[in-house]
Amino acid sequence: MTAATVNSKSEGFNPEDFDVPSNYRHWVGDRAENYLGPFFFYMDGMHPRTALRVVNHHCNAHDSVHGGILMALADYTLCLGANGGESESVVTVSCSNEFTAPAFLGDLIEGRAQVIKRGGSMVFVRCELLVGETVVLMSSAVIKRLRK
Amino acid sequence: MTAATVNSKSEGFNPEDFDVPSNYRHWVGDRAENYLGPFFFYMDGMHPRTALRVVNHHCNAHDSVHGGILMALADYTLCLGANGGESESVVTVSCSNEFTAPAFLGDLIEGRAQVIKRGGSMVFVRCELLVGETVVLMSSAVIKRLRK
Amino acid sequence: MTAATVNSKSEGFNPEDFDVPSNYRHWVGDRAENYLGPFFFYMDGMHPRTALRVVNHHCNAHDSVHGGILMALADYTLCLGANGGESESVVTVSCSNEFTAPAFLGDLIEGRAQVIKRGGSMVFVRCELLVGETVVLMSSAVIKRLRK
Amino acid sequence: MTAATVNSKSEGFNPEDFDVPSNYRHWVGDRAENYLGPFFFYMDGMHPRTALRVVNHHCNAHDSVHGGILMALADYTLCLGANGGESESVVTVSCSNEFTAPAFLGDLIEGRAQVIKRGGSMVFVRCELLVGETVVLMSSAVIKRLRK
Repeated sequence: MTAATVNSKSEGFNPEDFDVPSNYRHWVGDRAENYLGPFFFYMDGMHPRTALRVVNHHCNAHDSVHGGILMALADYTLCLGANGGESESVVTVSCSNEFTAPAFLGDLIEGRAQVIKRGGSMVFVRCELLVGETVVLMSSAVIKRLRK
Repeated sequence: MTAATVNSKSEGFNPEDFDVPSNYRHWVGDRAENYLGPFFFYMDGMHPRTALRVVNHHCNAHDSVHGGILMALADYTLCLGANGGESESVVTVSCSNEFTAPAFLGDLIEGRAQVIKRGGSMVFVRCELLVGETVVLMSSAVIKRLRK
Repeated sequence: MTAATVNSKSEGFNPEDFDVPSNYRHWVGDRAENYLGPFFFYMDGMHPRTALRVVNHHCNAHDSVHGGILMALADYTLCLGANGGESESVVTVSCSNEFTAPAFLGDLIEGRAQVIKRGGSMVFVRCELLVGETVVLMSSAVIKRLRK
Repeated sequence: MTAATVNSKSEGFNPEDFDVPSNYRHWVGDRAENYLGPFFFYMDGMHPRTALRVVNHHCNAHDSVHGGILMALADYTLCLGANGGESESVVTVSCSNEFTAPAFLGDLIEGRAQVIKRGGSMVFVRCELLVGETVVLMSSAVIKRLRK
């Protein structure tokens, strides 16, 4: 995740157009995240909450969500933990994932991250993705801050 | 990755249409992989070789490839290691990733997996993704075989 | 971690002899854990709490605790999450660790695990190790149950 | 792993006293590694080779090696990859492990690491531990160099 130079409103997506609750908002400036998701988030203090409504192109032949989509949403969630939802650029160093349950077509997947340590150059974060009360992925990461 | 019931030719993508060398072929039946990539592969004995040509929607604002795309390609590569390129359905249990270098717009990313152990129910695989000689991601996974 | 056939009292260690609070107790029957630690635990419902008092042989030349000791304590903590503190034998399949801060000679390291999913054959657990309020290691694991 | 100020010969262990082949040598100055193992190594160019002869205190009740011992040996192997067998101090940031097969009492476990990238501040390494031709653990790590 890298912040766009201009965090312009015109690029932004409306969560309700993607069947995601209106308290979430769109991080502007990452083409891949728009394409992969689009993903949405809000900050609960230091801790990000994220969301994705599962559609056809997130799924395999059995209508379950591809592991790559889940890890991409986890990475988005973890990086928001690292930069606190601000425009600071960060880069993932390592990301470890355990797939605890499947998610399916039509599900709303919600992510929540917990920042364990935020150092000057490295941030340690973990998160889980849930469908309702069921954890579908648990994830942890080391993320580097790219401060000037 | 789950195999389509009908691995029909009509769904297949031609690698050269995506600027990927013609010795690679398309795994048919996973909508997410078609959307995320499309990804391509061939088998070098038991060991898969995979490829993705990076285009705009794989990248963030700095034209570097999103970590989620890299982990999705790694997952594809690892699962092909687990099912040997055959139609056996497999599901990723855990996947650990280290991001060793960035990949950029226009790059051809190639993956190669090494099956460390293929048990009756679980397969242990690791892979690396490369741009030329540079490793951009190293990854390892535990994958479950879904045999009837 | 595998349960001893006879979970005999005579083998047990007294936590206070190792400067560990008396509400912890000793898991009997694993020679390596006795040697590595000894480690101690109690169950907070389904969630284990564990402890180790750091002595000389846990440390390197700078009196900080070796990463291998921390990962061994994490593995002990995670496996207790998987077997619920009972005598069921379990075996670690994968274990991922992030080292968030150092621990030092004389510290009391405490572990706490959270069972994310306990399936019939596999358990997903994560834990953190702390010195006071500081997390020194975060860890997650896939653990296999060895039921007859 | 941190280098001792004085890498004195008097502290060194003789591999043959621990039933380890004589081409391996002892890294002096880490009390925990002496206690956990002792572990031995030699450098094959940039790539470390390590060894441990399994004795009683490395094992659980079933005479199989504790996961913590395996991860400690992996950490030792990975750190030697990061510092190239020299006295440079390094510290593990993250370490991911998959347990592919058990090792038993009396086995000689041998480790071999491969340095994937050695940057100015961070090193990416992976390794496997083997008993004969069987991989018992595969592991990967991000390691920080502590240069003055």
